[in-house]
Amino acid sequence: MQTFELYLAGRFIQTNDVLQVNDKYTQVPFAKTFLAGPKEFESAIQQAEDSKSALANWPIFERFSTLNQIAERIQHSREELATLLSRESAKPMMYALAEINRAAQTFSAAATACRNLTGEIIRLDWTPNGKGRTGYVQPFPIGVVAGISPFNFPMNLAVHKLAPALAVGCPIILKPASSTPLSTLALAKILDQCGVPRGAVSILPSTRETGMALVTDDRIKLLSFTGSPEVGWYLKEKSGKKKTVLELGGNAGVIISKSAQLEEIITKCIVGAFSYSGQVCIHAQRFFVHRDHYPTFLDLMLSAAKRLKIGSPLDSLTEFSVMIDAENAQRVDTWVDEAIATGAKAVLRGNRMKNHLDPIILTQTQAEMKVRREEAFGPVICIEPFDTIEEAVALVNEGRFGLQCGIFTEKVDEIDYSYTHLEVGGVIHNDVPTLRFDHMPYGGVKDSGMGREGVKYAMQDMMEMRVLVK
Amino acid sequence: MQTFELYLAGRFIQTNDVLQVNDKYTQVPFAKTFLAGPKEFESAIQQAEDSKSALANWPIFERFSTLNQIAERIQHSREELATLLSRESAKPMMYALAEINRAAQTFSAAATACRNLTGEIIRLDWTPNGKGRTGYVQPFPIGVVAGISPFNFPMNLAVHKLAPALAVGCPIILKPASSTPLSTLALAKILDQCGVPRGAVSILPSTRETGMALVTDDRIKLLSFTGSPEVGWYLKEKSGKKKTVLELGGNAGVIISKSAQLEEIITKCIVGAFSYSGQVCIHAQRFFVHRDHYPTFLDLMLSAAKRLKIGSPLDSLTEFSVMIDAENAQRVDTWVDEAIATGAKAVLRGNRMKNHLDPIILTQTQAEMKVRREEAFGPVICIEPFDTIEEAVALVNEGRFGLQCGIFTEKVDEIDYSYTHLEVGGVIHNDVPTLRFDHMPYGGVKDSGMGREGVKYAMQDMMEMRVLVK
Amino acid sequence: MQTFELYLAGRFIQTNDVLQVNDKYTQVPFAKTFLAGPKEFESAIQQAEDSKSALANWPIFERFSTLNQIAERIQHSREELATLLSRESAKPMMYALAEINRAAQTFSAAATACRNLTGEIIRLDWTPNGKGRTGYVQPFPIGVVAGISPFNFPMNLAVHKLAPALAVGCPIILKPASSTPLSTLALAKILDQCGVPRGAVSILPSTRETGMALVTDDRIKLLSFTGSPEVGWYLKEKSGKKKTVLELGGNAGVIISKSAQLEEIITKCIVGAFSYSGQVCIHAQRFFVHRDHYPTFLDLMLSAAKRLKIGSPLDSLTEFSVMIDAENAQRVDTWVDEAIATGAKAVLRGNRMKNHLDPIILTQTQAEMKVRREEAFGPVICIEPFDTIEEAVALVNEGRFGLQCGIFTEKVDEIDYSYTHLEVGGVIHNDVPTLRFDHMPYGGVKDSGMGREGVKYAMQDMMEMRVLVK
Amino acid sequence: MQTFELYLAGRFIQTNDVLQVNDKYTQVPFAKTFLAGPKEFESAIQQAEDSKSALANWPIFERFSTLNQIAERIQHSREELATLLSRESAKPMMYALAEINRAAQTFSAAATACRNLTGEIIRLDWTPNGKGRTGYVQPFPIGVVAGISPFNFPMNLAVHKLAPALAVGCPIILKPASSTPLSTLALAKILDQCGVPRGAVSILPSTRETGMALVTDDRIKLLSFTGSPEVGWYLKEKSGKKKTVLELGGNAGVIISKSAQLEEIITKCIVGAFSYSGQVCIHAQRFFVHRDHYPTFLDLMLSAAKRLKIGSPLDSLTEFSVMIDAENAQRVDTWVDEAIATGAKAVLRGNRMKNHLDPIILTQTQAEMKVRREEAFGPVICIEPFDTIEEAVALVNEGRFGLQCGIFTEKVDEIDYSYTHLEVGGVIHNDVPTLRFDHMPYGGVKDSGMGREGVKYAMQDMMEMRVLVK
Repeated sequence: MQTFELYLAGRFIQTNDVLQVNDKYTQVPFAKTFLAGPKEFESAIQQAEDSKSALANWPIFERFSTLNQIAERIQHSREELATLLSRESAKPMMYALAEINRAAQTFSAAATACRNLTGEIIRLDWTPNGKGRTGYVQPFPIGVVAGISPFNFPMNLAVHKLAPALAVGCPIILKPASSTPLSTLALAKILDQCGVPRGAVSILPSTRETGMALVTDDRIKLLSFTGSPEVGWYLKEKSGKKKTVLELGGNAGVIISKSAQLEEIITKCIVGAFSYSGQVCIHAQRFFVHRDHYPTFLDLMLSAAKRLKIGSPLDSLTEFSVMIDAENAQRVDTWVDEAIATGAKAVLRGNRMKNHLDPIILTQTQAEMKVRREEAFGPVICIEPFDTIEEAVALVNEGRFGLQCGIFTEKVDEIDYSYTHLEVGGVIHNDVPTLRFDHMPYGGVKDSGMGREGVKYAMQDMMEMRVLVK
Repeated sequence: MQTFELYLAGRFIQTNDVLQVNDKYTQVPFAKTFLAGPKEFESAIQQAEDSKSALANWPIFERFSTLNQIAERIQHSREELATLLSRESAKPMMYALAEINRAAQTFSAAATACRNLTGEIIRLDWTPNGKGRTGYVQPFPIGVVAGISPFNFPMNLAVHKLAPALAVGCPIILKPASSTPLSTLALAKILDQCGVPRGAVSILPSTRETGMALVTDDRIKLLSFTGSPEVGWYLKEKSGKKKTVLELGGNAGVIISKSAQLEEIITKCIVGAFSYSGQVCIHAQRFFVHRDHYPTFLDLMLSAAKRLKIGSPLDSLTEFSVMIDAENAQRVDTWVDEAIATGAKAVLRGNRMKNHLDPIILTQTQAEMKVRREEAFGPVICIEPFDTIEEAVALVNEGRFGLQCGIFTEKVDEIDYSYTHLEVGGVIHNDVPTLRFDHMPYGGVKDSGMGREGVKYAMQDMMEMRVLVK
Repeated sequence: MQTFELYLAGRFIQTNDVLQVNDKYTQVPFAKTFLAGPKEFESAIQQAEDSKSALANWPIFERFSTLNQIAERIQHSREELATLLSRESAKPMMYALAEINRAAQTFSAAATACRNLTGEIIRLDWTPNGKGRTGYVQPFPIGVVAGISPFNFPMNLAVHKLAPALAVGCPIILKPASSTPLSTLALAKILDQCGVPRGAVSILPSTRETGMALVTDDRIKLLSFTGSPEVGWYLKEKSGKKKTVLELGGNAGVIISKSAQLEEIITKCIVGAFSYSGQVCIHAQRFFVHRDHYPTFLDLMLSAAKRLKIGSPLDSLTEFSVMIDAENAQRVDTWVDEAIATGAKAVLRGNRMKNHLDPIILTQTQAEMKVRREEAFGPVICIEPFDTIEEAVALVNEGRFGLQCGIFTEKVDEIDYSYTHLEVGGVIHNDVPTLRFDHMPYGGVKDSGMGREGVKYAMQDMMEMRVLVK
Repeated sequence: MQTFELYLAGRFIQTNDVLQVNDKYTQVPFAKTFLAGPKEFESAIQQAEDSKSALANWPIFERFSTLNQIAERIQHSREELATLLSRESAKPMMYALAEINRAAQTFSAAATACRNLTGEIIRLDWTPNGKGRTGYVQPFPIGVVAGISPFNFPMNLAVHKLAPALAVGCPIILKPASSTPLSTLALAKILDQCGVPRGAVSILPSTRETGMALVTDDRIKLLSFTGSPEVGWYLKEKSGKKKTVLELGGNAGVIISKSAQLEEIITKCIVGAFSYSGQVCIHAQRFFVHRDHYPTFLDLMLSAAKRLKIGSPLDSLTEFSVMIDAENAQRVDTWVDEAIATGAKAVLRGNRMKNHLDPIILTQTQAEMKVRREEAFGPVICIEPFDTIEEAVALVNEGRFGLQCGIFTEKVDEIDYSYTHLEVGGVIHNDVPTLRFDHMPYGGVKDSGMGREGVKYAMQDMMEMRVLVK
């Protein structure tokens, strides 16, 4: 059984607190690592603090070179990293490989972004007392950053914190999900070989309690959290004087308008609905379909869902596998039961066994049902009809979330109306909300979070502007 | 008869060379001004040169205040200025008033733009030898600017040179069209009252020969010309070491796609076709209409053109009046004769008398006919059918011009395809190419010119970047 | 006695809870207004929420016109507004007039800034799956904004919240300090006359308890607070799901280096030290002087401080008057006593009577003394020597605040070193930290706050980016 | 003898017109290539035109990958490429290697820059008729680009045209100097292996006459020329309807102020003065030294110049070798003779033999002497004293050139005054004007050229903005 050491400010260490990591498909432990304790966190924070100045002065040519090297090594080890990721998360290999590719791309985008760190010169003679005066506005690294990342993209969502921090020149302490800590610890080895300054990065799995040090310690200037809304908003409250960026989830909607070409979109819709069993922040959970298309769309989705290849995540052909754990499978199943009990109809529903849960398609749902109102984070979708684009947009806007939305339409006025009125961070034209490019701004409004990631956007929150009035 | 003095570097002067200005509708002289000679140009250039440094150091709060005051005074005198403009150009009052409004708006946009003059700070440590080095990139005024403006928008097209020059801090010498010099000379009085630094502005009507000083003199660093393609490209050749911005004309196209709603667009099309007798750089000259709409569109345009209220430009209800002079009316009429002689069909054609020429609608034209290939700059349009959007775009792209194009469509793919493939400076969705906002980038490709105007865009060509490596 | 009504979503109202406002110099009530209660806050928040969409769609030309009109009317009523401000705050007229000018300028800057609201188009084909895809990133108003503003700049620090909110298109509810509510209520009348959309603005003095609705209500999306560090950080903790911008105070430092010309800088230093009795967020509290200059600087400051014209704030020649209230005067006086008791030496110290407190100059202070460590917000300064620029910068960086710093030097390496190493939001070359231009980024690091104001910078926090992937 | 084939739109070809290339140090032919004739130019232009659309649609991920690959291969072959460059140009290996490094860096900067191609979204509702309208401004490739590059940096100055063109998506035809065509033809092989689209690039040495096709052909939309002022301005006149960017030379000045530390700057000054025998556009030709430093500086420069290691360029220790040809050596020598005949004094002067010319230091020169007024482009410098910074700046500004200037000073006011008043494209603080970073804006004012290079700056001239009004 392979052992993964923690990464503490540039050293690989072990603690007395062993953490067994299960293969989520076989449910058998296949690797071990450790939980960091208060001592490790204190050490990480202090060493990060001590390395602040070195990081801030890390020249761009070295940052650029290091970030590119990391991207290349990730790419070079992609099979190996994807296998590890697939085992610890039960993510089908095709998606695990895609995630590793994206992690490499995220580092590459950070390399580009660090070259783009620029300042602004403004004229101050807008008033007589500013005559002869000029303002020089430049960004400075904010200081120590803490990242907390979730299980569902154990590599790339962590990289979306690590890569921007390095690009800006901020030390960072990352707490990966304790169910899937291995991908980032494997990444730690790559970081370590590519010239990341000593002290700059720590990767420390821990209990949630111990990890609260990252939330409450005042030496940390930014907390960047990706995870569930409940936890996220709670952490903001406890975050003291630090900035917080919250990348939370939602119950993303999709609009299939009258002008959509159904045949061409089903593949995208099925991927948005069931990839990684819907355990995706921008999982396409609510489909709103123009009434003219409604019956056909339902049929097409049903047959496509039935064709999904279910099996072991390590099989390269597998499209759908198990969920992260039995608790979540049960939670989703219970929500579905509740929905059916209050009037919803299951067009498709298979069995659940432990953490195995088959794709589920519901109709006749109501806004207040949990499967529609809450973040399902599981393989369940709701498909409902609408009559006008205004109605469709209102349906997407119901409730408290607002991350992304997809809309399939060929009409200028429909896309314009939707973009203007959808209360979300991103509108995806002719694709599902599940689409994300790693260098685009990404993040939610309403209860889906605050702040934006997407490398250069994440970097903005990691900097403080300082003006020189000369 | 009112006398308008020349404006020479902050003084109003007269010369021995009197220029009578006709009321273009009555053909009777109604005002007089003067032609500047070589001596005046030399004096203007030298005083501009001498005032360079003062202009460059003109504080933003004063520029802002002056530019805003000018805008307000123009607005305050709009009736009077529009009447003058209408008389010297035969532009119907409704359009003359709109032009005066726009001139005020252009100065207001320049006031905003002068506050936005900013620089950029770039990091130079992309390579080891740049470690610790920073680049400060700031714009400096290019020096003396020369503007040559045409008769068709005697006020606003001159203002598109004057206002940016003042916003940047460049002295400028303007040569207005000698057929319509009065609007800018009236403007000179406003400039003079609003605190424009002495020496900064000269407005000098002259013969074309004398005016060549502005093209050939090496003290002038930028020539900004708006006028005909033939003259423009000739001036570029003669421009020596100076930069040139050429805002020339074209034979703008309009695409009416299958998804357009004909009833709603006819008013816009008629304005694009016949406002100021087509003497507009972005006159909608070539209409390409989806074959399904073709007969109806032709009918609607024909009846709408017949309803145009023709009369004296000073009448507030007049929509259509005379052309600038008999030569141009005759030229257009001859082109129409030629077109008909080689196969075109006149759906609408009235009489010509002196500079009076009625609206003309042609069909069955060919690409090589002058009415379609050249810039008509007169009240003639061609209406032709097409079958596919690709064909429509190819028709617009035929020939050597590329200024703006209008496209009426409700389909996303049609607007995307058109925007990507039309060889023009601007694509106007659901309107005619004749639409222009004064703060948007405006200018043509191919033989329609080089460079862009639109206040902040015009200002870019009036500045040189200077980097400080520290 | 004049009555000022509250401004509730476009209507002027009274409540049963009368608030007497004292003339701070005479200590006699001179006007009355009202305290808003929970009902008024609920109404304001709901009407703000209801007007969100109208505000978001408020066209730029109307915003621009309204913001400019407000600026002009403020300018037009400057004497009257300054007198009111002077009476309610005991701010000397020369400074009150300057503040009114600045408030007009802040609205003018907001007019400019609303025209500059732009978006970004990014290419998404950095990866093969982005081929043919483009990202359109545009800002949208964040929703309802709450502003809480302090007594010391009762007009302009409120305007720094109101003007940006209107420029962005966000409804705003402002709670002014209850000791100085009149300036903003006078401003409300101007806003009301200039076309601000109904429901967009409420101005509600209240008790601190009632005002907590602005902090805790989830319909409000941004809390912008200017005030004391203690209150600010507490409010952040209570702010729920909303963003917070905190403009807090500090104990700003000034560095007088060896190359400084003492004679030329004393006037600036005295203004930075004692204007408005030091009740300024960027009050120059700690002077660090090169040892060679130390004795002379002390002498010069002493005699200049003695020359300050002390008297009624309404006297146009008065440079120094009373503090806001007796409690604060006593607090400062006590801190000075404590400092002297533990070794500090008072070079200058007069008497205190009620809210009257004379200028105080201390030397031989220690880092841990309250007069040096805390925000004095009173007419006391510490003057200490240093030997090297590194030492001077370290002295400024001691402690927990970091707002602005002034440095007087003629040497390139000193200004570069200082700018790079000072932990502040702004470094002012050859002036005191008390200098601020209303359109420059302004805000602190460390305990001095988070986020930046300065119109366009304040606006950024009032917007959410929304990406359209096409 | 190695043969280098021409590169014609993606194919390597030979012509009947053989061009022998001398080793410039031994004066013996060491390689051969060919001259392109009118047929080759016609073919290159037409194929470039035909590939325009493919280039414009070349996805960013492929451009990025290709540009990075090119950078890596150049780096990988740096010894080999530097040796070739050294032989064809007599550039000492230490400088040849540096140039190859920079060429790789320029391609890397272009890779970064192609990801940064973005557009702008502007609001059009500044006026009522713009209500609901938005402007989308995006850059499009201008079309076919022609580059003409000089002998002195045969690789990197060509790369400054090739790399930006590929980053933008413009086909490019490059005419390298016929005395040093080999470096770019060796580069052609690398381009060919790295996925540059067929037709995108041609590299064609030719006679000046034949090469005029690049200047006069209307299918070419941009001429980017680096070379002598005389040729450059002549080409602008002949350039027809195309844009021109001219990177010409100058007689760059250096200011050594009173506050400069002489010992630390001599090495930089010697490199600026004599690297590659002064055959550098930003060769430090005129040194202006504060009178207090003047005698010492002269001494230090004299002894440093005498210590220069002179020899074969292929020797890795050689600092100074021969000039490009005997004609130029003789020209410079003659100018020196003339200067001495009219009063200048030679502090250092060795012999000339063929293209060998020793370093020359002159004093007591006059503004009108050719060694000071014209671009020497040879190993001669003038050293003169000054008394005030204003005088020094005026001396640098004398004459018709304005490329870059170096200034050594420790005083804020001197660097500010110089930056503001020097009529140049770049001011280098505490270094010689010879310093250039490949991603910074680079280019001259006055007779030194028009436009800026520096990858992203060069790219701006290779694009046309197109606005979509929606």
